[in-house]
Amino acid sequence: MRKLAGDLSLLSINTATLRKQLALPAIIEACAARGIGAVCPWRDQVHAMGLAAVARQIEESGLAVSGYCRGGFFPAADAAGLRAALEDNRKAVDEAKALGAACLVLVVGSLPGALAGRPEHKDIGLARAQVLDGIAATLEYARSVGMPLAVEPLHPMQGAERACINTLEHALDICDALDPGRTGAVGVALDIYHCWWDPKLEGQIARAGRERLLAYHVCDWLVPTRDLLNDRGMMGDGIVELRKVRAWVEAAGYAGAIEVEIFSDHWWSRPAEEVLDACIARYSTVV
Amino acid sequence: MRKLAGDLSLLSINTATLRKQLALPAIIEACAARGIGAVCPWRDQVHAMGLAAVARQIEESGLAVSGYCRGGFFPAADAAGLRAALEDNRKAVDEAKALGAACLVLVVGSLPGALAGRPEHKDIGLARAQVLDGIAATLEYARSVGMPLAVEPLHPMQGAERACINTLEHALDICDALDPGRTGAVGVALDIYHCWWDPKLEGQIARAGRERLLAYHVCDWLVPTRDLLNDRGMMGDGIVELRKVRAWVEAAGYAGAIEVEIFSDHWWSRPAEEVLDACIARYSTVV
Repeated sequence: MRKLAGDLSLLSINTATLRKQLALPAIIEACAARGIGAVCPWRDQVHAMGLAAVARQIEESGLAVSGYCRGGFFPAADAAGLRAALEDNRKAVDEAKALGAACLVLVVGSLPGALAGRPEHKDIGLARAQVLDGIAATLEYARSVGMPLAVEPLHPMQGAERACINTLEHALDICDALDPGRTGAVGVALDIYHCWWDPKLEGQIARAGRERLLAYHVCDWLVPTRDLLNDRGMMGDGIVELRKVRAWVEAAGYAGAIEVEIFSDHWWSRPAEEVLDACIARYSTVV
Repeated sequence: MRKLAGDLSLLSINTATLRKQLALPAIIEACAARGIGAVCPWRDQVHAMGLAAVARQIEESGLAVSGYCRGGFFPAADAAGLRAALEDNRKAVDEAKALGAACLVLVVGSLPGALAGRPEHKDIGLARAQVLDGIAATLEYARSVGMPLAVEPLHPMQGAERACINTLEHALDICDALDPGRTGAVGVALDIYHCWWDPKLEGQIARAGRERLLAYHVCDWLVPTRDLLNDRGMMGDGIVELRKVRAWVEAAGYAGAIEVEIFSDHWWSRPAEEVLDACIARYSTVV
């Protein structure tokens, strides 16, 4: 296993972690000042500041971009909606490219309207078919510009609204269908928050291998967890066997960043410096 | 598919659904008065009234007992805890037998102490090994008295505290390991609340077949879901494709009760008669 302590070059901060405290330029500045190696910016945060300005700041800072969050949300209730999603994903690919991101993370979507609390139908099989088609179409373009797509399985508790791909196995089945040659053009973003519970996790990580493991996200699963979205824990505060899972990931050939992504009402209420201190300390000791 | 409308003999009420409104004798009385076919009592509710009295009331009422909730919680931090769990499960088998239950439902447990908010370790692999041993030991006794064990996979969001078996596939793997002859001595309790999201659901239901499908529980998954435990929906109020899943279950050979099990702060706040009205109406129209 790689030695993390004393080497922040492998640490990446997903910028959602500090979205309530700081605007994106200040997050980038704070990460660079700490010697952190990379960031993974969110699209809305980039749009708020302007793509060109963010790209310039990141390049000047020397930070790597471990991923770009996020494309996806492919399902729709009609043809116009499906087309609009594809166009938006094409733009997301271009933005990821402009930022020099290692991959575009895909949160694939699920039942149309569910995220707004008004699902337009219940046919998750249809949503899954639309997701497959959407990734396939986006992949064609992404391949042409050289931007890897990282399908992120989300926790099953987010399966109605955010992603109808909820296991690493399912995500890898899609990768195999679209890229049987394992070219690296499509793979997975593995987030331990979403996948820790899976009895097939070790085997599917090995199956994924170096070509499919495009991103690795860490935080922790708190006991009890009090909210289905915004109660993620800082690494070490929950029950995920972080060291064990990272060993599986690295044994499979993953050599990329360790990205901290924490959606948490608690951590969003703390000063940014305190959050970064905690990320660095836990990255160095328990991840 | 079986026709449910106009025939309440296949309807079962899991008594947790009304646990905040009525004591167990009143629940049994209300179900019998409506012509509902069965109940599935919870162990704490039975203990509060006395096993013999409950068994007598159920027998006199003519209600069937579609299951007994619940055995399980096998993992423990030490040998004494493991032994105590086995002894308690043996008692649960005896109680299920005294009640004439169709099966003893097993919520298998997970990290010791996690249910109380203080997990004693993080090794879910160890918990899973203890669960396998615990079911094996309990099965030996349950076979000898003729009480089928129904392993219930719980939603992955409850995987740290309540059950480290979170997919139908995993539950069936355990059944196959312990009962390769498919004798009916061990199978699964399939609850759509826990399993609706699973992309392998249809295939695993077919794999389970008549010999392994020992109970079928319904409610609904609300969008949004606001609580990880007590925000289940009444059938038809959420996004589960109830009719589609029941078709799979019955095509696999299941001929037992349709059990309504709703943990819900909302429904617990409504009058018992209103809840039963809703259960009957939705059973007859959307399940």
